[in-house]
This record gives sequence, structure tokens and C-alpha cells, in this order.
Amino acid sequence: MGGVGAAALLASSPALAAPVAELAAPAADAVGGGTAYILNTLLFLIGGFLVMWMAAGFAMLEAGLVRSKNVSTQCLKNIGLYSIAGLMFWVVGYNIAYPGFDGAGWFGMAGTIYPMQEVGSADLDTGYSVASDWFFQMVFCATTASIVSGTVAERVKIVPFFIFVTVLTGFIYPVVVSWEWGAGSLDAMGFSDFAGSTLVHSTGGWAALMGAIIIGARIGRYGPDGKVNVFPGSNIPLATLGTFILWLGWFGFNGASQLAMGTVGDVSDVSKIFVNTNMAAAGGVVTAIILTQLRYKKADITMALNGALAGLVSITAEPLAPSVGSSILIGAVGGAIVVFTVPLLDKFKIDDVVGAIPVHLFAGIWGTLAVAFNTQSEVDGAVLSMGAQFGVQAIGVAATGVFVCLASGILWFALKATIGVRPSEEVELAGLDVHETGVEAYPGLANQG
Amino acid sequence: MGGVGAAALLASSPALAAPVAELAAPAADAVGGGTAYILNTLLFLIGGFLVMWMAAGFAMLEAGLVRSKNVSTQCLKNIGLYSIAGLMFWVVGYNIAYPGFDGAGWFGMAGTIYPMQEVGSADLDTGYSVASDWFFQMVFCATTASIVSGTVAERVKIVPFFIFVTVLTGFIYPVVVSWEWGAGSLDAMGFSDFAGSTLVHSTGGWAALMGAIIIGARIGRYGPDGKVNVFPGSNIPLATLGTFILWLGWFGFNGASQLAMGTVGDVSDVSKIFVNTNMAAAGGVVTAIILTQLRYKKADITMALNGALAGLVSITAEPLAPSVGSSILIGAVGGAIVVFTVPLLDKFKIDDVVGAIPVHLFAGIWGTLAVAFNTQSEVDGAVLSMGAQFGVQAIGVAATGVFVCLASGILWFALKATIGVRPSEEVELAGLDVHETGVEAYPGLANQG
Amino acid sequence: MGGVGAAALLASSPALAAPVAELAAPAADAVGGGTAYILNTLLFLIGGFLVMWMAAGFAMLEAGLVRSKNVSTQCLKNIGLYSIAGLMFWVVGYNIAYPGFDGAGWFGMAGTIYPMQEVGSADLDTGYSVASDWFFQMVFCATTASIVSGTVAERVKIVPFFIFVTVLTGFIYPVVVSWEWGAGSLDAMGFSDFAGSTLVHSTGGWAALMGAIIIGARIGRYGPDGKVNVFPGSNIPLATLGTFILWLGWFGFNGASQLAMGTVGDVSDVSKIFVNTNMAAAGGVVTAIILTQLRYKKADITMALNGALAGLVSITAEPLAPSVGSSILIGAVGGAIVVFTVPLLDKFKIDDVVGAIPVHLFAGIWGTLAVAFNTQSEVDGAVLSMGAQFGVQAIGVAATGVFVCLASGILWFALKATIGVRPSEEVELAGLDVHETGVEAYPGLANQG
Repeated sequence: MGGVGAAALLASSPALAAPVAELAAPAADAVGGGTAYILNTLLFLIGGFLVMWMAAGFAMLEAGLVRSKNVSTQCLKNIGLYSIAGLMFWVVGYNIAYPGFDGAGWFGMAGTIYPMQEVGSADLDTGYSVASDWFFQMVFCATTASIVSGTVAERVKIVPFFIFVTVLTGFIYPVVVSWEWGAGSLDAMGFSDFAGSTLVHSTGGWAALMGAIIIGARIGRYGPDGKVNVFPGSNIPLATLGTFILWLGWFGFNGASQLAMGTVGDVSDVSKIFVNTNMAAAGGVVTAIILTQLRYKKADITMALNGALAGLVSITAEPLAPSVGSSILIGAVGGAIVVFTVPLLDKFKIDDVVGAIPVHLFAGIWGTLAVAFNTQSEVDGAVLSMGAQFGVQAIGVAATGVFVCLASGILWFALKATIGVRPSEEVELAGLDVHETGVEAYPGLANQG
Repeated sequence: MGGVGAAALLASSPALAAPVAELAAPAADAVGGGTAYILNTLLFLIGGFLVMWMAAGFAMLEAGLVRSKNVSTQCLKNIGLYSIAGLMFWVVGYNIAYPGFDGAGWFGMAGTIYPMQEVGSADLDTGYSVASDWFFQMVFCATTASIVSGTVAERVKIVPFFIFVTVLTGFIYPVVVSWEWGAGSLDAMGFSDFAGSTLVHSTGGWAALMGAIIIGARIGRYGPDGKVNVFPGSNIPLATLGTFILWLGWFGFNGASQLAMGTVGDVSDVSKIFVNTNMAAAGGVVTAIILTQLRYKKADITMALNGALAGLVSITAEPLAPSVGSSILIGAVGGAIVVFTVPLLDKFKIDDVVGAIPVHLFAGIWGTLAVAFNTQSEVDGAVLSMGAQFGVQAIGVAATGVFVCLASGILWFALKATIGVRPSEEVELAGLDVHETGVEAYPGLANQG
Repeated sequence: MGGVGAAALLASSPALAAPVAELAAPAADAVGGGTAYILNTLLFLIGGFLVMWMAAGFAMLEAGLVRSKNVSTQCLKNIGLYSIAGLMFWVVGYNIAYPGFDGAGWFGMAGTIYPMQEVGSADLDTGYSVASDWFFQMVFCATTASIVSGTVAERVKIVPFFIFVTVLTGFIYPVVVSWEWGAGSLDAMGFSDFAGSTLVHSTGGWAALMGAIIIGARIGRYGPDGKVNVFPGSNIPLATLGTFILWLGWFGFNGASQLAMGTVGDVSDVSKIFVNTNMAAAGGVVTAIILTQLRYKKADITMALNGALAGLVSITAEPLAPSVGSSILIGAVGGAIVVFTVPLLDKFKIDDVVGAIPVHLFAGIWGTLAVAFNTQSEVDGAVLSMGAQFGVQAIGVAATGVFVCLASGILWFALKATIGVRPSEEVELAGLDVHETGVEAYPGLANQG
């Protein structure tokens, strides 16, 4: 708190302080500073490439769940958004997110600008390579954008979509991050979000929700008679592949959010995070299968896939503190949320193509609130009660929701009012692939939808 | 032998004892205990996520090799079985597999129950994080179940399949593991199975074989006139992707089965395992291509894929001791086994949808026996002769076969006699996707089978 | 220079000398020799499996960009070439590439043969496991062959293709490598190619170019009236997946080409390489999207994918020295090269099915030349001027081009004149899948081309 630069970064990641502290441990367990630096950096690199791989997971999940006439466009949006996120997080995002916090404000831009020009220089004081940290933080930023692309698929033109992504990854997401991981106001309150149930997943979810509302549903999705027409996904194994990729990537997402593995304690914590992350996902899958089997007499594969993802999102806010059993339970509740809220969105005629709002927003809120059951923060030298922690978690959820809804709502409206977000009805019915990217997804195969 | 808890675990993994022993090495090469702990744990984590990724490999391989009307169901079975395996291995499997062995019996449940509630605690005595070890062992358990799902695809209902997986991953597989890696009777005899040609692959293979026999062939597969009807897979690039995923994952499967990389010797062994594993697979591919080209005048892609997998299974029992040349040879024999035994199964009207029995059972037996050519165990202070080692390997193969066939045979029969394992003829002909999971795999594309 | 065996290997990889040198660093940062050995080896293993995974990326990219009637054959070629590359690099390739250089000649075979029988032995003098280095170098060799398969797809029979791969991976590629990474003549001149824009990508590209010219275009590709007929790829999400796989693998390709992470400086450099590699790809994607949007009013997904790859190839010659901004620029130029040269090849009726020549050859040349802007080599104790460096880079490009074109040209001609490279017109029109591998790619789905 109150420090600047590297010190401020450390303030929000207590684990990173450990290597130095534990150098005084008994000789047999001690890890030298150079070795710890290498291992901490290696964790960022491995975690980083695993989370980067999640971009492919989202691409496959979404390509599998849209109709075949929009598959190429969905692929283009995904590789484009990952690229834009990287560029914007470099141009401005990282500086906003980690401002070298110098006050109690909600926006970090006034803080010291982090010296990006020195990326890659060995900085022994931080205990890890700054470039590796930047890489790890950047892929989180990209994840937020991936969430949005799924919800608003099949009815947004490429150019306005990319403009939205530019602002989301360069400004909206980094501001939210600055409040917590950037050692800002939420962090000061004791808000706890280990790997981003709120900061990443809910932020993406709120932006997606505003998009779905402002852009409107796909043509023909909701009949005038109140009938809900299901537009089945065109490639289920691709969606399954995407889910497995995301599950794999999540070991990096949650595991490397420990931010250090240069001590025996840190790497043990990373291990426990791996187990809890996996088990929450398993709990989500099994719950979704059982509930859909009971409710619809069919074990729905798309619900099982979203159940896995909801389990993963749920455990993301606190993958370390819970026992294995608690992790399974947290994930199972996430899976149940998906099964019950996917039909609910349709009641409100909110057209979420891939189910990203239930998975990332609703399960993200659940996971963030559930933190209070398993760990409590220390604020001003005193540990919060479970009730107080619950309240702080709710404040974090609400603050993120208000800000992201406002910012992304204004942005979607502005795009709608200027260059327009939707293609013509003719283009939408024919599929965006022919008109927007000019490349059909499966030209050699019959295309009926 | 005869110890309990961590000591017993170490008994079956001599490599783990190394970090302590080698601390007395010359100062220039010495690795501190804390650093070794971190590196050992990291090996489990990297190996673990690579083997977890194999679950996606099996899903893609099987989704590619079934007909399009059963693809969604196959995806569901695969994500479901991976989830169930995790839950069951937590509830009971790990305790059975690693019982803190306390006698010479074949079943470990009487032994000391391993304290799962302490998962994640740093335990310097073991030299690695228990949670990381649990994660690594769990993904092996899931692999066993993945093998079964391929063989019995397209004709088993979802619910009985998942019940079978529950028992297989919670009890049958862990019992077999307890005999060897749990420091049980096979281990005491000098049986050697480095990464599981028998424990994992043959166990899965035997369970699959019993399923294929008891459930019977798919409708129309074997004509009344003795004609064998080929049901071609619906998506060859997906099957290819699955094979590449499995190949990649196998570096974790075999490499991290070294169980340690906290010493110069261990990490060098892991490196050699990488090379041998890769080369056995290459040998399997090239052999399958050459043999099918010679025999059928066509280089069969599905045989090439299964040749890779057979090569990998073959080297799994001993990927460290053989020279590179021997590894290629071992893999090549595995590839040849596939080419010659796939048609053989059809002669006996055993309907193995993806060829998992030749790949995992037959090549697994070959690989287990071939261990004797390359390494011999020390039993009661004396090294076995090659002949004696061969005998012990055969005993391990037979013991596993008898137990798994009995246990899984009883289970398949019980399921058949109670809730039934097959869907109605009407459902099977229409495809399980419509009736079992309610989601077609490729709805936008023409579906002819 | 002038040394033999391990010493010669070190000569071309200065980073590896660092661990020893830095042992004299201040105690707080020092990493012990054993720990450094483990970490260096681990870098090769992680990098190695990531680059191995690129083989799957090429397979998916190419399977997605060929017509559905040739997809199975393309899958077979890819898994086959990866296997052959491993075998040939073991039999002879590695010995040619790293000859224990003993003179100023251009061919290394006269040098001391590296003791492959000792692969896997712990060699503290080299500072890493030889087997891990072999594995890492082998997957690079396979990459070179993957490049060729894409360009000459849909019109080369399987057997002559595999013969070409055998010679390419066993002889042509290793000879080129020996000139630079084997401490040969190009290395002596000060030529700089960090991770292989020329050695890997241009070598593959030149071999592909000769193939495209000598084999000729696919039937119907270029109409008699000069009309260019586009044969659209059959599966765009598969091509997208392939591109993401390649992007992921490239972190290993470039990152682990640092060849060491046993010091604070090395792992920081690896981190910077990760960032620069990612940003060059992002620059390529965004440039390709903008240029195709401006030029064709459509943001072409296949150009975006190739833009990513061109960005990656461009930064490969020097991913460490440039700033982040320069890396984006280098990648962006690569993306632009693809957009402008893909149509150019069609003007010359050079039929490159997947665009591998623009991506790997043209962007590879660009990246190699661009090295001069960012770093200059030391030759005979003096640092080259930027102009001199540019000249040396051009010599390296030209030498590689002349040799690879001659060698692969002769080989393609010899194959054409003997067993023939093309299938009959009837077979080519029906698709290679039916006649060459006997397995259709999507038999359950309508197949129109």
C-alpha cells in the first residue's frame, strides 16, 4: 500500500514476497535468490503459454457452437481479438492495470507509468522477469475479450466488434484490474479475487450481457408467439475440444496466479490449486450431466461442457484455500447455475449464443461470493469476519458490474449509433462468412445453416 | 517394503530417494533440498497437465472414428469419464492404489489410509508435493477409462457406461496399481512396469475386451454370411489431431514417470525417456505405413495413427533402459501388432470401434514382456536373469488379465442384467446422439451415417 | 571455432557458456551448476514438446486448407513426415548438423561424428542433457519438412513425398544447419539466425518452391485463359486451430532457442523472447486484417492466419534484440508480405496450396535481413557495421537458397523421372484419399470436392 512501482506490484501479490522472507529458512530447504527468480519466471512463462492456449479454446468452443454459415467469421474474430488484446495491453493496458498505485482513487492513470521500455531486463528486486509477468497478465486481458465474442456471435460485424475489443482490452479491463491486482481501492477493502472470477470472467460477462441487450437477438431466435427457437451448434466435437483446451489452460490461469514457485511452500500451493481447479471442473460436469438427465431425460453435452467451464470459473476466485471437497462443491454449484440460468436468459430474450453469461458472469459472481466461506482478508491489521468478507466480495462484484456495464454499454451504443453493429438482415440470414470474411467454413460440405 | 505411508510410496519409486542421496555429490553439481523439491513437484505438474491433455486426445480420436450419428455421445462420454475418474480417485482410488502397504497381500485396502485431507501440505520428507503426485496419478487413472470408451462406442447407453467407469476408476484400476506402484506383490516379485503398459494400458484393454464381448458388436457390423462391414470414421483429421495430442501427452506420461528431476541424473533420464518415447512412436508409424502399403497397396491413415499409439504403448513399460535403436524396434513391433491383429479381432467378431484392444492390450503385453530384454530387477539382493525377468513379466500380465477380466466381466454382466447396457435397436440405428444426449454433432451438415 | 565435439557445440551457442561464467556472480543471484544443468535441460524439454506440437499444427492447418477429397492423405503425410524426420535425424542428420566442426568447409560430414550412443548420459561439461538437446533439434528438423507438405499438397503421391522427406530431413536440412548452428562457414562470417528464419523456414520454403515448380499446379487451378481458380479450403476452423497450435509452439521454437535458462539473465531473455514472438504474430494478424479489409472490403480469415504465421517467421531470426515496438513492426511487415505475395505467386502459376512460400520463404528472408537493424555480430574481435551485417545476412540467405534449390530440385526431378511424383489425372480429380490412403476424411458428410 502506498508504495510505487515494483513495491506496489508486490503489495497485491503477497506470495511474491515469500522468496526473500524464506531465504532465512533452514539450510536444507533454502532456495537461492537466483534460483527462485528463475523458477518464479518459469511459472509465469508456463502459465502464460497455457492461458494463451485458452484463446484457441474459446475459438474452437465458439466455432463449434455457432451455425456453419458464421464459423469463419467467428474464427477471425477470435484470432483478431487475441492480437488486439496483446497490442492494446502493451500500448496502454498494463500501465493502467498496474499503475504504481499512489493513492486511494479508483482510476490508476494518475499513478506512475510503469517503465515498459525496460521489459525483459532482469530485475532482481521483483524476484521475476518483468517481461514474463507482462506476458502472463496480457493473456488474461485477452481472455476477457474472448468471453464477449461468444455471446454476441452471428450478428455483429467484424469492424465494430474489433473496435469494442480495442477499448475493452486497452481501458475497461485494465481499470477493473487496477482496483484489485493493481493495489487499488478494492484491494484496500479486503476484496479477494485470486485469479479473476470477477476481474476477468465477470468483466467479460458484463460486457457480453450489455452487448446481447443492446445488439439484440439473432433474427428468428425468439418467435413472435414467445417461442424460443434453438439454433444448434454446427460442430460439437470442436466445442468439446475447445472446452478441453480451456480446462487445460486453466491450470495455468489459476496455478500461475500463485505468482511464485521459488519456495517449497509456493510450489505446494500451486499443486493444490491444480487439484482444486480440476475437481471444481469435474464437479461442474457431473452436476450438469445429472441435472439434465433428470430434467430432460437426456444428458446434454453442451450443458456438460458449460458445466465444466462454470466449475472452473467458480473456483477461480479462490482455488487455494478450499479443501478438495469444498472445491468440488463450489464447482458443482457452478454447474447447476448453468443448467438453470441458460433457459432463464431465453425468458428475457437475451440471446447468448454460447452460454457465456451463465458461465462467466453468473458462475463468476457465485465464485467470488463463495470466497468468504473459505478465506478472509486482513484489513488494517485485523482479519475480516466471514460476514464482512461476504459484504466486501459483494461490493467488488457490484462495483465491477456498475463500471463495466456503464462503460461497455456506452461503447456498444456509440458503435450502434455511428458505424452500426449489425449487418443487414440479408447478410445475417445468409451468414456473415460470405459477406464479412469472404471465406466459407466448410465449402466442400453441405451447408444448411 | 514393509514401511507405511510416505516410506512405502518411496519403495516403489527409487528415483525419489535420489535427491537425498545425491546431496553428498560434489559441490558443483549439488542441488539443494528445497530446489529439488520444487523441481520434482514441477515435473509432476507438467507431466500431469500433459497427461490430462490426453483425455482430449482420446475424445478427438474417438469422435473422429465413430460415425457422425454418435459423435456427440462420444464427446459426452469422454468429458464425463475424465470427471468421474477424478472424483473416484479422490474418494477412494488413491487410497487403494497407494495403501501404505503393510503386508504381502494382493489387496491394499487393509493398509493404512493415506491422509488425503493433507493434500497440498508441503512434505519435505517425500521430496515433492503430495497434491502434485495425486494429480499426476489421477490423470493416469482417467487414461484407463478413456481406453474403454473407444472400444465399446456407438452401442452403450450413457448411464451404464458411466457406472462402469465409476467402478473401474474407483476400484479395479487402483487395485492393479496397488500390486506394483503401491509396493504390493508384483513389485515384491520384481515385476517392472515403468509407466504402465500393463497397469494402465492393458487394464484398460482387458476391460474394453470384456465389454466388446459381453455387449456384442454393433448392428450390421458382421453380416450373417460372415462378411465384415467396415463402418468408416466420420472425421479423419479429428482422429489425427487426437493422435497428435496423445503423442504429446505421452512425454508427460512416460517422462514424468521418472518421478523426479531434482538431480542431474534424473533430468537426464527424463530427457532420454523423451527421445525413446518419440522414437518408438515413429517406429510404429513407419512400420504401419510400410506394412499397409505392402499388404493393401494403400498406406492406411487409421493404421498409421494406431501404429503411433501402439509404439507409444509398447515403450511405456520401459522407456528409459533401451537404446534409441531398441526403442525404435520395440515401437515398430507394436505397429506391426496393430496391422496384424485389427483384422484378427474381426475374425472373432469382436467389434472394437477404434482399435483400442490391439493398441492398448496387445501392444501393452508386448511392451511389458520386452522389458526383460533391456533391464532386470533386483529381488532380495540379487538381480534376476533375463529369463526369470521374462517369467515375472508374464506373471504380471497374467495376474492383471485375470483380475481385470473377472472384475470387469462381472460388472458388464451385472449392468446388462439390470439396467441394460445397449440402447434399443431403433435408437442404435438412428444414432445415440438424438436419443441419449439430444444434440446432433454436425446439424448444419448432411448426415448420412 | 576449431574445437571439436561439445566445445564446438558451445561455440555456436554462447548462451550456454553463461552458467559457468556467472557462477562467479554475487552469492544472492548465484545458481549452482547442478541446478543450472537441470533448468537448461528443462528448457529443451519444454521447448521440445512445444515444437513437437507444431507438427500437429501444420497437420491441422493443411488438413483445413486442402479440399475434403485430399484431407486424409494430408493427415497421413504429416504424421509420416514427423516420424521420418525423427528417424533420419537420428540415423544421420544430427551428426551432419553438429559435426564437431574441424575446419572451414561447407559440409560437416568430414568432422568428428558425435557420439549418439551416449545420448542421455549426464554430461556436466555441456551444462545440459545431450538427449534433451537432440530432442529439441530434431523437432526443428521435422518443422522443415512440414513446410513442404503444405505447398505441394493435393497432387503428390505418398511414396515419392516420403522419399523427398527422407532426404530433406536426413541430409539437406542438416547440411544447412551445419553451416551456422554447427559452427560452420556462415557462423564464422557473422551470419545471425537465432531460431531459424533461414535455416528452418527458408530451407523448407525453398524446397517447397522447387516442388511447386517441378511438380506443377493442380489440375484446373490455372485456366487456359489466364483465369486463376480458387480452390477453397474445406475446414476453416481446423486451419484456425492449426494456426493457434503453431503460435503456441513458437514460444518453444524461439524461447528455447535461447538454449539456456540456468541464469537470471537467460530466463529473462527467454521471457523477452516470449513477448516479442507474441507481438510479432499479433502485428502480422492485424496488418493482414487491415490490408485485406482495405483491398478486398473483406477481412480474409486465411490471410489473417497466414499473417500470424508470417509474423512469427519474421521474428524468428532475432526474437531477443528488438524492442517490443520493433517486433510488432517486423511482424507487421511479414503480414503485409503475405497479403501482397500470395496473389503474386498465382501470376507466375506457382500453385502453393496453403501459402507456405510467402509465409516461410518470403517472410523468412525478410526476418533474416531485418536482423541487421537490431543486432550485429562480432567477427574476429570486431563488431560488424549494420551494412556489413546486412551483407552477411544476404549471403546466408543466398547460400541457403542456392544449395537447397539445387539439392531439392535435383531430388524432385529424380523422383519425377523415376517413380513419378504425380498421381494419374483420374486419381487427382477423384481425390488422393480414395486411391492413396483408402480412407475418406468425412465419409458421413456430403463431399463435393
